[in-house]
Order: sequence, then structure tokens, then C-alpha cells
Amino acid sequence: MSFRYADDNAEAYRYPLTIDQLLESALATAATQEIVYRGDVRFSYRDFADRVSRLAAGLRAIGAEPGVTVSMLDWDSHRYLECYFAVPMLGAVLHTVNVRLSADEILYTLQHAQVQILIVHPDFAGMVESIGDKLGDFRIVTTAADGADPAASDYERLISASRPHCFDPVDEDAIASTFYTTGTTGLPKAVSFSHRQLVLHTLATAIKLASQAPFGMALGDVYMPITPMFHGHAWGMPYAATLMGLKQVYPGRYEPARLLDLRQCEGVTFSHCVPTILQMLIDEAKVRGDDLGGWSMAIGGAALTQNLLTEARDVGLNVFAGFGLSEAAPNLTLSRPLTGAADSEARLCSAGLPFPLVQARLLDTAGNFLPHDGVAEGELVVRAPWLTQSYGGNAEASAELWRGGWMHTQDVATIDTLGYVQIRDRLKDVIKTGGEWISSLMLENLIQDMAEVDEVAVIAVPDDRWGERPVAVIVPSGDAPVPLSAVRAHLDPMVHSGKLSRFALPDRVATREELPKTSVGKIDKKLLRKQYAAEGVSE
Amino acid sequence: MSFRYADDNAEAYRYPLTIDQLLESALATAATQEIVYRGDVRFSYRDFADRVSRLAAGLRAIGAEPGVTVSMLDWDSHRYLECYFAVPMLGAVLHTVNVRLSADEILYTLQHAQVQILIVHPDFAGMVESIGDKLGDFRIVTTAADGADPAASDYERLISASRPHCFDPVDEDAIASTFYTTGTTGLPKAVSFSHRQLVLHTLATAIKLASQAPFGMALGDVYMPITPMFHGHAWGMPYAATLMGLKQVYPGRYEPARLLDLRQCEGVTFSHCVPTILQMLIDEAKVRGDDLGGWSMAIGGAALTQNLLTEARDVGLNVFAGFGLSEAAPNLTLSRPLTGAADSEARLCSAGLPFPLVQARLLDTAGNFLPHDGVAEGELVVRAPWLTQSYGGNAEASAELWRGGWMHTQDVATIDTLGYVQIRDRLKDVIKTGGEWISSLMLENLIQDMAEVDEVAVIAVPDDRWGERPVAVIVPSGDAPVPLSAVRAHLDPMVHSGKLSRFALPDRVATREELPKTSVGKIDKKLLRKQYAAEGVSE
Repeated sequence: MSFRYADDNAEAYRYPLTIDQLLESALATAATQEIVYRGDVRFSYRDFADRVSRLAAGLRAIGAEPGVTVSMLDWDSHRYLECYFAVPMLGAVLHTVNVRLSADEILYTLQHAQVQILIVHPDFAGMVESIGDKLGDFRIVTTAADGADPAASDYERLISASRPHCFDPVDEDAIASTFYTTGTTGLPKAVSFSHRQLVLHTLATAIKLASQAPFGMALGDVYMPITPMFHGHAWGMPYAATLMGLKQVYPGRYEPARLLDLRQCEGVTFSHCVPTILQMLIDEAKVRGDDLGGWSMAIGGAALTQNLLTEARDVGLNVFAGFGLSEAAPNLTLSRPLTGAADSEARLCSAGLPFPLVQARLLDTAGNFLPHDGVAEGELVVRAPWLTQSYGGNAEASAELWRGGWMHTQDVATIDTLGYVQIRDRLKDVIKTGGEWISSLMLENLIQDMAEVDEVAVIAVPDDRWGERPVAVIVPSGDAPVPLSAVRAHLDPMVHSGKLSRFALPDRVATREELPKTSVGKIDKKLLRKQYAAEGVSE
Repeated sequence: MSFRYADDNAEAYRYPLTIDQLLESALATAATQEIVYRGDVRFSYRDFADRVSRLAAGLRAIGAEPGVTVSMLDWDSHRYLECYFAVPMLGAVLHTVNVRLSADEILYTLQHAQVQILIVHPDFAGMVESIGDKLGDFRIVTTAADGADPAASDYERLISASRPHCFDPVDEDAIASTFYTTGTTGLPKAVSFSHRQLVLHTLATAIKLASQAPFGMALGDVYMPITPMFHGHAWGMPYAATLMGLKQVYPGRYEPARLLDLRQCEGVTFSHCVPTILQMLIDEAKVRGDDLGGWSMAIGGAALTQNLLTEARDVGLNVFAGFGLSEAAPNLTLSRPLTGAADSEARLCSAGLPFPLVQARLLDTAGNFLPHDGVAEGELVVRAPWLTQSYGGNAEASAELWRGGWMHTQDVATIDTLGYVQIRDRLKDVIKTGGEWISSLMLENLIQDMAEVDEVAVIAVPDDRWGERPVAVIVPSGDAPVPLSAVRAHLDPMVHSGKLSRFALPDRVATREELPKTSVGKIDKKLLRKQYAAEGVSE
């Protein structure tokens, strides 16, 4: 026999998983709820939906047909959220531009995405002007500058001059959004997500957040993003907050003082950010003497250290880590405490547990699955209904990303018996020595604890005997270099306690005034490896 | 232009929305969590998944190929939950049999579903035997009787004799489950739900429950169903509880004393039931002197009255209403309090707010949409990604169910400006008089409050002048009939306060010793209408 199917029924509505359904759900339960921008501007969800509809009409009138790319350069705003809905609801593609890239990189992504309409905050107008003549034919829609009268901006005129749009149905598999991910190698690569993928990402995100609140958010919470809306849809949280009908606060450009003011005035209870921003918020709160109690914050983008967690708790913040990738829309895991467990801080700093519908596995170098015992380290590979199916126009990288039918994160991780994922290292940063893997991340975290160390990168350097050996590149906090002997003395207790293999002790310390960074602010280990490979592993 | 799509990538995993993904998600985060049956038997999720896999292998070995119907007659049990997964994961169809139907009706549904494998609790073995010779060729798998050694049962032998099954992929649009809905008219009608529909129903249910806990359930809650697993997948809650990795308690046949014992011993915090069962639980709690504090309970199937809500609160229960239909898998709306609102009890007794992805509208008799102002009454029509697309083999009823592209609930409702749905009446029970609609349900609720009234049904009786007029059919609590004058005197204050139109006052009271009921225990108004139509509206 074969599968059974429901009888055909021409009258029945075959409900597609499209972005508009998220907004409709919000209206059905939270029409009077608020969306706030910088404390100055506030709309009810009902007004917001009306603006989305008229914005869509305005964009259509200037060419936003199905399949057209609308690129956006803006800070976190109600406008961005409006475009999250209006552009895909037209069947067009929202290209969320990473404003931190260089002008040349942005130009590349705009060309690759075949931009036809560009929505630009005045802060980025100069940059856009500098590359505009290389872009061919496109329309610019400028938003209001902060502090200026919005009514005079292109963007607001587009809305005020338009009547609500009558939307046509959109195929759930049509691309809704695209973003360019940048590694330390090669050109930016285009990831893309269909309506169906974003809806499912939203549903899974909402379940994860709501079921584990306050290590997440649920009804009654007030949401404010502090990771950019261009980056992985601000971790998908704005869509989830909209679906649940929560009050949302958009802070514009991130300024610690304004963020803390908004928290206080608008009653923000849930946010998410990277460790660097968290540190800024903590510092600012200390200066102001603010108690940030009642504010939950998911931390991602880089590892949350236990020291930073402790500092955050000292000012009242409830922090916990998560893990994702641009290729994954981006959510894959989120942490939460384990009731009654002694190691709950370590758990909160781990990548945590998979989102609903995420399958996570560990692969060894031969492509075999490894046990989930908290010890075996392998490349984390995943499946979920929202992972980019390809890198646009790059068949080779696409096949590599998905080889064997699992999406390769290029992160080395462990998974314990309870399902907690611990990211050990980037696959390319791991040090493969004598048949073992040493986590550069773990070594960095340990060395970072030394008072004499301001910043550290541990890299693999080729070695004839062992394959690779670790070298610690250190920016000292004082004037004097940190000697190898001091580093080894600092690490020795960890070796004795069994936390660290003796084999993992660095063979050399190199001193620098600063570490090279990539365009997104990560340490450029590729450059370091190149440089120190030439110098070798000896001091 | 046309929509853009992601590049094809033969290596990428195209993630289908299939039932197995729910179980996989549970294992990823809650492998050691418990599933308990009657307090006697308990499995970890890991063991449960192993049983599902071996059960599937055993069922496949006796013929459960893709498309085959496996019908189940059992009380609420871990077995039922195992079949919720094992049968659809094989690509087969789980037919959840309404054990409250007559033997003839059950025979009809089994024949219509083309049953090939029948899983039967010994309590139903006699009934099955009585109809077995009319069923043609099928296999019976008998479960253990309660109190008997499970190991000796067909069902357990099927599991213990099998090795884990290697599942083939299933099409997300393949039917996963089927159920027969019975009205007061005609033969039972087959509704069916695909894998995709059940997954989406589960995701939306989990969001709704988790985001509004404790008016729902989230991590840390312990779940026990008290509406049958054959009826609308126990409102989809077992799938949602599994997805979230909650502790689950299955009570077997519903006996008030055992239900309260299980609550206490297993720490149950969330359940759902119909008002009749709620009343039984309250009565039992009063007898035992139990405080049911910390137990949340969603009430559906019939209206939750404010009196019953008050009674429930008196024993500590946190109750709130919901609304659904067998055609809707079944969830459509669920209530919750409105922060700071004065009428929160009325809100908790209303059908509440739509589940995520549910679109709700009101239609007048001419097919026009009515405003959501809390006043306009119309037929509630809905869209959601999990509504049955047709009645199996009944094209006419299918087209009627979905006429105009909206699923017709046949319920008359209002929707207020905040989105709360209030069910006013069944469309066929509403009294259409002088161009107005009178809710028989509202009249019944008001008349029910009279001490002299044990049970009441208000029905429409044809009237030459007005079209229809209301007649109240009353079972008195004492020996004496309740006179019309007493009913009108009781209702008069409501007329004066404007709550009730003078026009809605019944013209006649008829007295009976009992009200006729349908097989599912609802008042058979069709029969009453027939009988009293002949007698007319005058006393």
C-alpha cells in the first residue's frame, strides 16, 4: 500500500506557512499592545499592521514585485520590524545588510543580491553614496534621522501616501529573507530563508522561550533586542515576540545609557546580546548604580564565561547562553538551569539544549556519529526545518555545508547525556596534536583569567613531530610581556586536577600590542596562524 | 518577476514536518523525564521511545504498512501515547475509536476506516467480539487488563519480541490520524489529519500553553489528560507535553478517586476536562477534603459557567475555558485572564483567544463578515494549518464544511475588540425570531440558576408570526413542575438590566422527567425540537 491522503476539497483553504500569518496571529490576541521606538514613537499592533500594509503598497508602487530584493541598512527600529513583514508579504526578498562590513563588502552583497530598492538610515547615506554608481539601477528610500521629523522622510511619505495593500498569496517556499555571512576566508556567502522556514523558526523559538521563562520570555514580558536586526533576524526574537503579542521596544543605535533608560522607562524584561555588549551594560549599570533585577538576557555570538555571568548577576541580570549560526536563521540551542544541579552556572554558560525540532549530532573526522556522553568531541552537525538549503550561487560551498545530509556548523562540541551542548572550539581553530584535539577556546578562557593578560588567542602552529602544537598570542595588560613560564605555572593546577591535559600546555607565548580582528570583530586567527606558522613553535 | 527560491542542493536535508520529529525533540532535551501509567508503570522518555520503535516493528510485522488503518480502543494510557507515535511513524493511520459510541456505530466507523489491525483493551473485547464477524479480515492486538500482568498481553509481546524499527521517511501530507465525529444527525463523519497538520497543531498548542502558564503548562509542570485520548488527540496536549519534555501521567479509565490520588502522588499541575468531569472532581475533593491548589485545568466540550468556576476555585483549582472541534484537531481558542480587568471571571468562562495561526471571523446569514465588537453575533468560521480538509468519502459535507474557503464551526459567537471569542449557541440551536437571534445557551444558563431547575434545554419552536419562538424544557429539581410565571419572574431582572431582550422570554415551559441525550452525552435538541414543534409554543 501507499500513504493515505485527505480527499481533495476545492473549497478547503490550504493554509500556507507564510509570514503574514504571524502578524495576523498577533492582531488576533494583542491588537492594542505596544511597539515602541527609542521611547519617542509608539504604535499599537493594530496601527503597526496598518503601517505594514501601507508600506507594502508604497514599496510595490516603486517596484517591489515578487522576487525583487529590498535591501535595508538601518538600526534596530519599528521600521525594521515593518520591513520584516511588508517585504516578504509582497513576495519580495528582504536583504538585511550587515552595516558593520566595509563599503566594498556591502557593495559586493548588494550586487550579489541584485538590489532594486534600498532602505537607508541617514547614518549610512554617505557610505551608500560612495558605492551607488557601481550599483546600477536602484531606488533609495531614506528614513528619518534620529531626532528629525519622521514625516519629512521618504520612508514615512511612502507610508502616508499609500492606502492599505491587498496582498496576493505567497508560496511558502519562496525566499523571504537573505543575509550575507562572513567568515575569515573568501567572499561573503548568501544564506536565505523561505517563509515556511521563518514561520517554523518563529514557532520553535516561541516554544523554547515561553516554556522556560524567565530563561526566555512569555506573556507579560517586554522585549528589546540588543543584537542587530540585520543579523539572523535579531535571533528570530522579534518574530516570536510579535507572534506572542508582547510589548516590544526598539532602541535604535546601541548606546549603553539609552538601553538602560529604555529598560527602566519601558519595563524591559527580556533581551539578548553578545558578551561585549553585556560587559558594556554591566559597566554602565555600575556607574549609574542601576539594579537590573528582573531583566533576563540570552547571550550568544561568543562564549559566555562564568566570570562574566557572575558579574552580570552582581548587577541583577539573569543571563544564560545560546548558540546559533547565520546559516540557521540562527537558532539552534539555548541554555537553562537544571533543577537542583550543582553545576548550574556551567550549564548556563554552555550552549544549552536544542530548540524544538532541532536534531543535533557529533561527527568525528571519519564521519561517524559520536556518543552524547559529555566527553566525546566532534563536529556539531544539525538538522532543523529552517536551515539555509544552500549558499546562493555557490554550489560547491552548499554541498560542503550539507555533506552527508547534515548541516556542518564547523564547531567542535560535546553533548552530554541530558542533551546539553558545549561548544569546545571552531573546527578550524582546534589544535590537532598527536591524534588528540585541544580546544583553543578552553586554553584562551583559562589564560584570560591571568591578571597580566589583557587579550589572548591560542592558535595551532605546524609541528613536524606532533602535527600541530598550541601557541598563545598574548596582549599583556601591563608593559611587560607575559613569559611562557608564568602561563605554564598558571595552567599547572588545571593539569594536576585533570581538567587539562599536560599535552595541551602551550609551547610558546608570543606577545603583541593588539590582536588582528575581522570585520565583525572576531579575532582573525587565520592571519595569526599564517604569521606564526612561519616562526614555528619555539620561543 | 516571480518568487525567488533557494538554489537546489542535493545534499541538503529537506526537513518534513512529521510526527517522529516531535519525539526526537523530546529525547534531545528530556531523555530521563518520566511517563507514568496509573502510578503503576513508569518509563523514561528514552525507554518510551525504545518501546515506540519496537512496537512499530511489531505492528509492521503483522501488516501495518503505509496507508493501513490501525484502530485503537483503549483508556488513556502510555500505550495510547505509544500508538500516537508508532502508527503514524510507519506511514499507517491511527484511528482513535470513540469507545462511547454504540457497537453499531463503532462497527460503522471501523468498516469505513477499513481497519486491518485493532488494538483493544480487554474492557472492550466483548463489544469487539460481538461485531467482529461483520468486519472481514483484521488482526486483534489485546492489551493487558488493568491489574493483570502486562507481559502476558499481545500488546507487550509485540514489543518485547521486536527489535527497534528502522523507519522509512513519511510524506508530511500523509494522513497520520483519523476520528469519527458524531452530530445529532446522520452517520459519523471521518475527519483526518496529516503529519504536517499534527506537528503544526502541536507547535501552536505548545506556544499557547507555555506562553500563558499557569493558564497552561510550561517546563516544570506535570501533565495528566482527563479528556479521552481518542477525542481530538486529548486536545493535542499529549503531543505538546511530549515536545516540551514534561512529566506525563496517564490515568486509565477515569475514576475520580484515582484521578485525585494521581494528582497528589505524581504532583500533577495541568489537566483538561469537560464540565461534567470537573464537577465530579470538585465533589470528590470536597468529600476527601482535598485542597487542589496548584492544579490548572482547561475546560472545554461544553460551556464553563461562572458558578462552576467559583465552585472549582473553592477547592483550589485554577480553571479556564477553551474551545475546539473534532474537525480542528481540535484546538481553536483558549482563555486567560486580562490583567487588571474587572470581568476576568467572565473572560475565563469565554472561549478565549485564538491559538497562534488561527484566523477567526464571524459571518452573518448572507455570508458577510461581521465586526469584532463583542456585540455582533455570527457564525464562527476559521482557518488554521491543521483543520481537516474534508470528511472522508463525503464530498458534499466537505464542501459545505468549507464553503467560501472558511471552515464553518456551526457555532454562533461574538468576538470582542480584544479578540476574546464568546460562543453564544450552536447555529442550529439558535432561536431565530422576528429577524433577531436568541441564544438558547444564554437562556439555559440563566434558567439553570433557579433552585427549582435541575436541567433545562431551550429550543426553537416554529411560530407563524415570528418564525420561531423559545420554549424551555425543564427537569424540575423537586416533584412540582416549574411554572412559566416563575421562569419569567426569574428572568425579568435581566430584562430590566438590559442583559436580556424582552423578546427572548420563553413563551412556554414544558416539563419532563429527563432530557434525551446523544451518544456523547449532549442534550438531543433535535429530538426535542421535533417533539415540541408538533405541540406548538403555547402552554
